[in-house]
Parts: sequence; C-alpha cells; structure tokens
Amino acid sequence: MATGTFAQSIQSPNGRHTVAFQLTPAGEPTYQLTIDGKPVVKPGKLGLSIQNLPALTRDFKIEKTDTSTSSTVWKPAYGEVREIKDHHRELAVHLRHVSNVSLILRFRVFNDGLGFRYEIPAQPNLTYFIVTDEHTEFRLNGNHKAFWIPGDYDTNKYPYSTTLLSEVDALTVSNRHTEIGTRSPIGKNYVQTPLMMHSGDGLYINIHEAALVDYSAMQLQVDQQNFTLTSHLVPDAVGNKAYVRTPFKTPWRTILVSNKAVDLLNSKTILNLNEPSKITDTNWIKPQKFVGVWWEMHIGTATWDYAGTQDMYSPEILSNLKPTGKHGATTANTKRYIDFAARHGFDGVLIEGWNTGWEDWFGKWKEDVFDFVTPYPDFDVAELKRYAASKDVKLIMHHETSGSVTNYERRMQDAYRFMKENGYETVKTGYVGRIIPRGEHHDGQWMVNHYNRVAQALADQKIMLDAHEPVPPTGLHRTYPNWMASEAARGNEFNAWSVGNPPEHETILPFTRLLGGPMDYTPGIFEIKMSAYKPGTAFQVHTTLAKQLALYVTMYSPLQMVADLPENYESRPDAFQFIKDVPVDWDDSRVLAAEPGDYIITARKGKGENTWYVGAVTDEEKRAVPINFDFLNPRQDYLVTLYADALDAHWKDNPMNYTIQQFLVTHNSIVKVILAAGGGAALKIKPATEEEKKRVKRYRERR
Amino acid sequence: MATGTFAQSIQSPNGRHTVAFQLTPAGEPTYQLTIDGKPVVKPGKLGLSIQNLPALTRDFKIEKTDTSTSSTVWKPAYGEVREIKDHHRELAVHLRHVSNVSLILRFRVFNDGLGFRYEIPAQPNLTYFIVTDEHTEFRLNGNHKAFWIPGDYDTNKYPYSTTLLSEVDALTVSNRHTEIGTRSPIGKNYVQTPLMMHSGDGLYINIHEAALVDYSAMQLQVDQQNFTLTSHLVPDAVGNKAYVRTPFKTPWRTILVSNKAVDLLNSKTILNLNEPSKITDTNWIKPQKFVGVWWEMHIGTATWDYAGTQDMYSPEILSNLKPTGKHGATTANTKRYIDFAARHGFDGVLIEGWNTGWEDWFGKWKEDVFDFVTPYPDFDVAELKRYAASKDVKLIMHHETSGSVTNYERRMQDAYRFMKENGYETVKTGYVGRIIPRGEHHDGQWMVNHYNRVAQALADQKIMLDAHEPVPPTGLHRTYPNWMASEAARGNEFNAWSVGNPPEHETILPFTRLLGGPMDYTPGIFEIKMSAYKPGTAFQVHTTLAKQLALYVTMYSPLQMVADLPENYESRPDAFQFIKDVPVDWDDSRVLAAEPGDYIITARKGKGENTWYVGAVTDEEKRAVPINFDFLNPRQDYLVTLYADALDAHWKDNPMNYTIQQFLVTHNSIVKVILAAGGGAALKIKPATEEEKKRVKRYRERR
Repeated sequence: MATGTFAQSIQSPNGRHTVAFQLTPAGEPTYQLTIDGKPVVKPGKLGLSIQNLPALTRDFKIEKTDTSTSSTVWKPAYGEVREIKDHHRELAVHLRHVSNVSLILRFRVFNDGLGFRYEIPAQPNLTYFIVTDEHTEFRLNGNHKAFWIPGDYDTNKYPYSTTLLSEVDALTVSNRHTEIGTRSPIGKNYVQTPLMMHSGDGLYINIHEAALVDYSAMQLQVDQQNFTLTSHLVPDAVGNKAYVRTPFKTPWRTILVSNKAVDLLNSKTILNLNEPSKITDTNWIKPQKFVGVWWEMHIGTATWDYAGTQDMYSPEILSNLKPTGKHGATTANTKRYIDFAARHGFDGVLIEGWNTGWEDWFGKWKEDVFDFVTPYPDFDVAELKRYAASKDVKLIMHHETSGSVTNYERRMQDAYRFMKENGYETVKTGYVGRIIPRGEHHDGQWMVNHYNRVAQALADQKIMLDAHEPVPPTGLHRTYPNWMASEAARGNEFNAWSVGNPPEHETILPFTRLLGGPMDYTPGIFEIKMSAYKPGTAFQVHTTLAKQLALYVTMYSPLQMVADLPENYESRPDAFQFIKDVPVDWDDSRVLAAEPGDYIITARKGKGENTWYVGAVTDEEKRAVPINFDFLNPRQDYLVTLYADALDAHWKDNPMNYTIQQFLVTHNSIVKVILAAGGGAALKIKPATEEEKKRVKRYRERR
Repeated sequence: MATGTFAQSIQSPNGRHTVAFQLTPAGEPTYQLTIDGKPVVKPGKLGLSIQNLPALTRDFKIEKTDTSTSSTVWKPAYGEVREIKDHHRELAVHLRHVSNVSLILRFRVFNDGLGFRYEIPAQPNLTYFIVTDEHTEFRLNGNHKAFWIPGDYDTNKYPYSTTLLSEVDALTVSNRHTEIGTRSPIGKNYVQTPLMMHSGDGLYINIHEAALVDYSAMQLQVDQQNFTLTSHLVPDAVGNKAYVRTPFKTPWRTILVSNKAVDLLNSKTILNLNEPSKITDTNWIKPQKFVGVWWEMHIGTATWDYAGTQDMYSPEILSNLKPTGKHGATTANTKRYIDFAARHGFDGVLIEGWNTGWEDWFGKWKEDVFDFVTPYPDFDVAELKRYAASKDVKLIMHHETSGSVTNYERRMQDAYRFMKENGYETVKTGYVGRIIPRGEHHDGQWMVNHYNRVAQALADQKIMLDAHEPVPPTGLHRTYPNWMASEAARGNEFNAWSVGNPPEHETILPFTRLLGGPMDYTPGIFEIKMSAYKPGTAFQVHTTLAKQLALYVTMYSPLQMVADLPENYESRPDAFQFIKDVPVDWDDSRVLAAEPGDYIITARKGKGENTWYVGAVTDEEKRAVPINFDFLNPRQDYLVTLYADALDAHWKDNPMNYTIQQFLVTHNSIVKVILAAGGGAALKIKPATEEEKKRVKRYRERR
C-alpha cells in the first residue's frame, strides 16, 4: 500500500499536458491538470456517494497503479475525417476504500486534453447499487470567461451567455426564455456541459463528458468565489442519480485544453473515449441531405395538426376531425417536396405532422398522444411510398413523442415495423414537453437509457436516427453510427417564432454542443425575415443568407437539412447551387481559424472528391478574414466559387444580399473575405480545368 | 338556480336506504345516507382539487337535478350466479361552480347500499386537467369496530386488524410486518378499502370503490375523534393524483350497508356499478382449477432460480449459469404436474421460475430483469407444449415483473405472442418489488392504467389473467371477464414462510378484499405444518385441513388453485375428492350465515349441475354451526358428503384430522356441523339415487 503522500503523474504524448493524481492525508483522491506547466485544474477532489455505503470520498488507500500508452487508428463509418488517430497515455489508480470497496480512477491524456472516469469493478459484496451523488471537482485557475447555458434538467435550447464565472446567473437567464416550452432550471449557479471557457492567461478550456451510457448527465455547479466547478448529476423522480451494477464505469469526464481555440474544434478526444461501433455492417447508413414539410409549420403558413385545436374538449370532435385546410403534411404537399428533392438531387424528404394526435399534443402531460402508425386522412402512406420510390427519394418519418416516453416505448416496435413496410429508413424523434414517466427528466439516467435503447432498436431494424430534444450528445455516434444527428441545442427554428438566436450563436455551438456530436441545426434559410410571411413581425433569422450557406461547412452533420421552402431556393438558383454541391461526408476537415463567440473558418474535403469546401461565419461584427489555402495540393490550380455577403449586407438591415464570384487559387493563396455583421461566406474549391484556367482570373493577392 | 338550502333525496327500491344531497349556504356539496331511518353517514362534504383552478369544494350552485329508476338483468360470462339484477334509483345533481366549471354528482342507491361519483362533463375551457386531491368525506355515526389493513401505496398483503376506529394505528401494524417485501405506509391513521365496519347499533358497513379506471386508488384517512373518513388518493411520483380529460368520471365510491352481514356478501352492487364487458365473444374464457410448480418454492424444497444467487456480482457467472440442482421448473417436474393434473381432471398447470432472471431479481430496483421469453436450459418449452397437449392439460405462464413495469410494457407484446405460440392461454402476472417508473406506486393512476392495459391487451390475444400484487379489485372483472382473479391481499403463501394468516383471516377476506372481485388465494393445503419439510420450524397454515376444503366454496374464484404438492393429495384421496368435485363456476350462490372475523357459511350450486356445495369456516373459535338446507329443491332427497374436522381437530394442535360422512337431507333439514378452532367444513349435496336412499342414513335432526 502506498501512503497518502504518494503522487503519480502522466503526460500527453506530446508532453504538453500533465495529469497528476494524489491521495490527501485523509485518503481523499485528487487530481490536477497542467498544460505547458500552467495549471488548468488545480488539485480537485473526486468521489462518489452510493446508497447504504459510507461516502466514497475519503479513507482510500492506493493498491496499485498501472500506466500504459496506446496509439491506434480507426475509421468511422462516415465523418469529418477518413480516419482518426487515438494516441493517449493512461493511468489507472486502483483504490481500496476503508469499507473494502474497490474503485479504479482511470485517466487518459491526449494531445488536446484529458478524460477520466470512475470504475467500480466486479467484487464480492457489491453488485447492484444506487449512485446518489458524484463529487467531481474541476478547480479552475481563475475567473474565466465562460460561454454557458443555464443548468436545466429538461432543456438545452437556451442561447449562450458569455460572462465571467463569477457573473453566471442561470435563473435570470432561464426565466427570460419563456419561448422554451419545458424548462427545469436548477439554480442560479448551475450550467450545462459542454462548458466553453477562455482563461485570462490565454487557455481555451472545455469541460464535457464522453460515452454517457446508463448514467445521468453531468451538469456543473459553479463556486463563484473560488471558481471550482462540481459535478451535478440529473436526478430521477425520487432524487437518485443512477441505478447500476458492477462492473461499473461512469462516463468519461473530459477537459479539452489548448492555447489555440482551433485545437478544441479539431479534437477527436471525445470520440476516442467512446466505444467502437456496435454495428458491424454500416453500409446501410447513408449521410444525406434532406428537405421537408417542416419550415412552413415554423413560419406559420401550415400546421402540424389537421383540424386545429378548437373544440377539442369534445371527444366526438376528436373522432370526427374537420380539417382546417392548413395541414402541411398532405399527400399533395409531400409530393411537391418529393419533386423538389428529385429535381435537385436531395436524398430525403422529412414529413412532420403526418400522423394523428397533433390537435392536443402539447402541454397536457398526458400519456396517450400519438400512436405513430395512424396517418391523417389526407396523407396517403401507400401512394407516397410508391411516388417517392418512383422518384428515387427516401421519406423520413417523424416520431414526436411529446415527452410521453412510456407511450413511445410501448409502440415503437410496431412503429419501426410500419416504417420499414412503408419505405422509411430514417426517423426524426422528438421529446417536446415534460417527460412521462412523470418526475423523470430529459437528461436523467432513465431517459439516457431510452435514447440509447432507441438507437439500438433502430440499428436492429437498419434505421437511421435524428433525435430532437435528447440529452446533449457525448460522442455516442461512434458506438451507434446510425444515430447520425441530434438537436439538443437551440436550433434555427427559434428564429422563426421567437427572439431567436443571436448572430454569435453559430460561432459558439461548435465550441459547445457540437463537441459531443453532429447537430441537426436545419441551416439554409434564404428568406431571412419572417415579415415576408407575416407582415409586421420582427422575427427573423439573425444571419445573412451567405452565412446560412457557410453553416453547411461550419456545423458538421451527416444528416443535413435543406430547411427553407422550395420556392425560396428555386428563386435563387445561384446561391442554391452551393447547398446542392456541398457534401455531408468528408475525407478531411480542418478548422483554420476560430474564436468562440466571434468567428469560425472551417475547410473540409468532400468524401472521395478532390474538392474542398470552406465555411466562414462571424458574429454581429463585420470582419475581413484571411483564408489560407495551404491545405490544397501544391501541384494543382483550383477554381474557387465564393458565396459571400454583398458589401452592403447586414444580418438585420440587409440580410439577403449576396455575391458569387469565381477565381483561381493555389496552395500559396491567402484570400481575404469580407463577412458582413452576422454574415458568412461559403467557398467551393475544385481543381481548375484547363478551360477554367483560361477563363477565370487568378486571385490577386498572394503571400 | 336553486338556493343553498335546497335538498334532494332518493330512496333505494326497497325504501330502506335514503341518500340526501344538500348544498350548504357556502355552496359546499354534502350528502348523507340513512338506512331504516338510522344514519349511516352524516352530512359529509364532497369536492375535488384541480391544478390551476380554485378548489371545487364550495361556491357551487345547483343547475338542475335528474332522478331515475333502473331495473335490468344481465348475465355474467361466469360467476357466482347465473344472472344479476341491477335495480337502483339514481340522482344526478348538476352543479355549476363560481369558476364556471360544470360538475355532476351522481348517486345510485341499491337495496344494499350506495354508489356515487364525480363527473366533469365536456365543457368549454376545461379539457385536460390534473386532479391534485379528492375531498370525499364519510362522516360515520360512531366509533365503529373496523376490520382494517394499513393505508399503504404499495401493498395490501397485511393481515387484518380489528379495532375501534379510534384505535387504528396503521404505522405500528405496518412496521411489524417486515415479511412484506415492499411497504409504503402512509401514516398512523390511514387504512385501505374495502374497509369493513360494524357499528354499535348493529349495522354492517363497507366502504370501497367500483370501476377504478384511469384514476388512482382511494385509501381513507381516519379522523379518530370525529370518525370521519376522508378520501386519500395514491399520489404519483410528483404528488399528483390523476391526469385526465373531459368527459371525466371518478370511480364510484361505494357504501354497502345492512343490519345483516350476509347482505354485504351477497351484494352485487359493486359489479353493477362497473361497465359491461368490453369482450364480445367470451367463449374462450374458461373458469378452471389448476395445479402448479409453486408451493414447493414457498416451502423451500425447490427454487424459482436455476443457479442460486451466489457470485452474482460477476457478470460472467450470470452468462454461464451453474445449476444448483434445486430448480423447480424443470421439464421433468413440470411433466409430473401435468400427469397429476391429467390424472385428476384439473385444467391447468402453472409453472413459476421457468424463465431466466431469478438469480438476482429482487430488491435491486433494477429495470432489466426478466425478458419473459427465455426459458432456463432445463425447461423445454416445445416438449412441454407437446406433452401437455397430449394429456389435454393447459399450461399457465408466469410473468413476474419484479415491479419493473416499464420493462414489462416494452416486452409484453412479444411475451404474449410467445405464449400463444407455445399453447399458454392463461397468464399469472406478478408485481413484487418497488415500481419502475420509480416514484410510481402499485396503487397509483399509472399502475391502475397498466393493469387495465394488460387486461385489454390480453383480451385482444384471448388470454386469461390472474394478477398478483395489483391494486385491490373494484369489480372490473365484469368489464374484462378475462381478468379472472387477482391476489391483492395476503394469500395462503404467507403461511409457508412467515407468521402467516391468523385463523380469522379467511372470515374477513370475503367482507373486504373479495367484495372487489375473485381472489387467487391458493387454497387446498393439506400438509399444514411446515415442520414436515423443515424440522423445527413453527411456520404453518393457520387452519385445519377441512377448512382448506371449505375455502373452495367460501372464497369465490373462477381460477382456483389446487395448491399443495401432488403427493399430499394422493396420500389422502378421500379428502382430495372434494377438491376434484368442487366447481369453479356457479348457477347460484347464497351466503347462509356470516359474521366478519368469526365465521362464514356459503352455499353454491354448480353451473349446469343439480348439485350444491357448502363451505363453512370459523376463526380461532370452535363452534357448532347450523346449516339450513332450505335452499334445496323441496321435491328431492339429497345425499350430503360432509368433509368435517375430526372431533379432536384444532388448527394448531391437530390440524390434519378430518372426518368424512354421508347422509341424506331434504330442504327441511338443518344440520349442525362442528367446526374446530381454526376449522371448517365442506359439503357436497347432490340428488340422492334410489340406491343411496336405501344405503345411506337420513340426518337425524329436523326442523
């Protein structure tokens, strides 16, 4: 047995990060993390509380420690890059508690950060147990600037606040956002992960978790004097945190850190900390772009429901619905979207509001809402199956659960059979509303297990998944590659009917939500101002049109919506061309420059193509950003098609003016692109043909 | 609008019961009930609390009242009698609350009591709502003697206490019964329904409910000074009582009352207050006797599990189970029971412990326990299907959920398909343990809906149901005739491994639990003392053997177990003959004499037979009871086979001595039968043949 003063440390493969473990004299496990000798987290405590056991926070002794190094390469089924290197050093500290419980703390240090977790191995006298609390501290080294959303058990649809840790006021922010239907804020000083920070000494730090399986999500309590963050697990209906058995492991707690912001965006550490794919044959999983009967409901020109909500107090009316004429998901309207998808080469058509139940689905906390197999009378499932197949377009089914998950679990096997019978290979799920089982939360263990159960059940049926309103992702798309995207943040739809998303929103999401996995943000809105549909309304998308194009590159998702109305695209075929061209699967991705809350410039190379795409987005500030093309093949000239904000563009005053230019570049080029306030730019960069080399001018500036 | 002093009353068809409704000057609804002019309940208040509305307890006005009389006859699919008369008068009081909510109070008065309920009809501005409380008072007229079990959200497996209302101490009683695995007592002065009482002025009063659908069960808070009982609804995980929509109706609150105890046992009022059968074709529903691999687990000579619980902390062991050799549900042992059933003409064989999961099923509050389709390796489903069919015996499946109802709901459709494929037409469900969804209770609305959902799902598959650990029945076997029996009380099994059931237990159950519906009590234990299996143990059945026979008549169930081991029956073929003979479906039933807690004598006529059966049971007191045969056909001589306690029999000292006699009776006969302490008697009464009239003596006494 080692003594309490024993300390052990390991370094990242590049030698920059050091994690050190030590037991205090009282037998308390502590760890610290430094980068380049600078503290990232100061010695902070670790521990668990388990029902009917003394707290596992002190009175430990070290039985042994193991260290190892691992360097492997794996290929994702699809993704931002063709292959991913997993190079880390590991330290496993085997502890024995005075109560005789055996606990392992496992640390893995990568070149861009740290992951660590608790493990309780199989052992006599401890099999099933209830985790009542986790006591993980992140003792930060100062009052960092933080990009945060309020700690909340049921929603992550807040816009980000940027404040010092000492200024976090989550309740005030939460209470301001009444446009979010279901909020369960925890308290003033609670925030969610991924939590992005920027320290006074120039470090970019992100705290999140990886591989959230059979456990509740971790939120963070902020000590606003000492800048210590403490894990706060989402409780269940009776206040417990997790029901588990040995051998047990928590999710990984992750700390990404670098002096360069782009390193965090390029990090694959969270993916590396997840388990390999459980799906052996992934050939059926197809990254895709899709259109759908959707935005028209958000802008209010159509409805999910067929009969409106009038008179719903009478059950006779429910059983004899009278259409309002505003129903979006009709056979005819769906065919219009199928035709649109076929005309422009999009893979899928999502239809929301196809099934009965929307007349009184929301806010009742009622259990029986949707049955997921009964279409409205004006939605002809068989005819649409035939029609979509004739156009080589796939239909995407929508399963809104309204939060009544017990109901969904009863019905989902039948629903998936119904999907397969009718040609649907992708499902978009939704969890709008308070959860049933009542007292459970969106981010608690029971729901975490549900989301994972759905992913597995869908994998068994070879169905792809896009989950809305789930727990924030933690890299599980590695393990369930059919779980292609999630919402789990404030998406573009908020711009249609609320104060919306401020221009900086899309410069923060990649530093926060997207670190856990792809987001179905639904980019591509061309008609920026809602006053186009409803005169007088101030609602609008808080970007320029060009920035909407850029999002297809800066916001990675293998399931990317082309979200606006067909007519808004077909009236702007030149700008629309970028959306038609941009891939959803990549051989390579490189974030070129980024500052959270300010701007992001990302370059990606299309899967199996020799073509690159660049997206650049800014916040509410206009800026000229240099794009360095040194990622290009030096032996090649390239034709750039630049989709940029017009010189007079501005997210608020003139959002829809854009310009499209073509010019030639080489790997030596640095192109300055002007991004309007709330603007962006999208670039397609393909090897120039001889004809293009003659016809098109070279970009004038060079390094 | 009527004024606050308006009062309206109706009388039962026989004129003995009067219910009067009145609004107080404050607009509070009140009702009272009298019998023969004597108060049963004094004016007590009625009301509901609904979330986001002012309490619906005062400020009402009467809009109108309707009265009507109804007299109909209906035929149950099976039962205690061939047809049931529903004769009642009804008063519907239409109230308007100051908040504009419309509420109807509906009263139905029968010749043996009252039912009333709250109804909230369809109305503008009120559709979905949450019931947060119900305020129904039963203002009793004195400090009655009560036969009660503790108020408890999760169990009804208590023995009865008999005390004055002022002496109820439910917590003390609950805490004494640690043999009950899952207890959630409410407080000192809470009791469950059916609550049986005997007043100082000679009235027998029973309070319960009928047609518990989409609502939580009602328990009762006892005001121990004023003897007012107030409804206490079982809460859900967040403290609410029910989530409902208009048109809404509560279950009926029932008050059975008579000066004769037998009137309560003969009452069909609770059945009459339930809705007619939802099952049109009931031909597939077969009342039956069954044997099973069951009692040997309770007495400890066999186990449900296959591999014991040792070493279960290692998941490797779970996936490679080593049998202990004590597993009850083997193919060979099941065949032994099939042979036994076939030899003696029993319809079914129940097998418990056939499926994997029993090694660590209990007390963990874990969600994934049983899958309901995977047999242990020593249980050959296909072979047993073949073998049972060859012997014309039906197998009965067991689905123990361990309280993990979310898991069962996910799997039950597959489980029912598995049953049908393998020849099972009856299922015994079990809900041992804390409920999942965690925070829900056995008797809350969510579980009430689950039990009913199971009954409906089984009806769709033509499967019969015997539910263990459900909410106390409320007559729903009228609506779901496939829901043939429930446990929902302290069954015979407690005698095998605990302090057991006192001798009076079976004289109280028909006045309480059985008023709601048939009970799977599992009578028929011949080997009374557990020391026969485990030398030295004091555990025993607290009756004589003869009383076990009598229970087949006094404890009505269309699904009646023959619970003891085959060898215990076949070594006593003479006594066993009664169990073989006794029907489970009846043309007529008459409780001849009864006193709760003391004795019950019941006569029943077999369905389609000209044969009567009588059961007589006593508590711990020995008594001589006269049996009056005036129910017999006057133009017929009958041969009685009497199975009685031997003269030296005693439940504790000499429980297994019995005597069998034959004699002739007519409708004029009154036979005195001696019931030992804790004893009973069973009689088969069939028309005597000419040969029997010559051979057998006439009973000596006559009226």
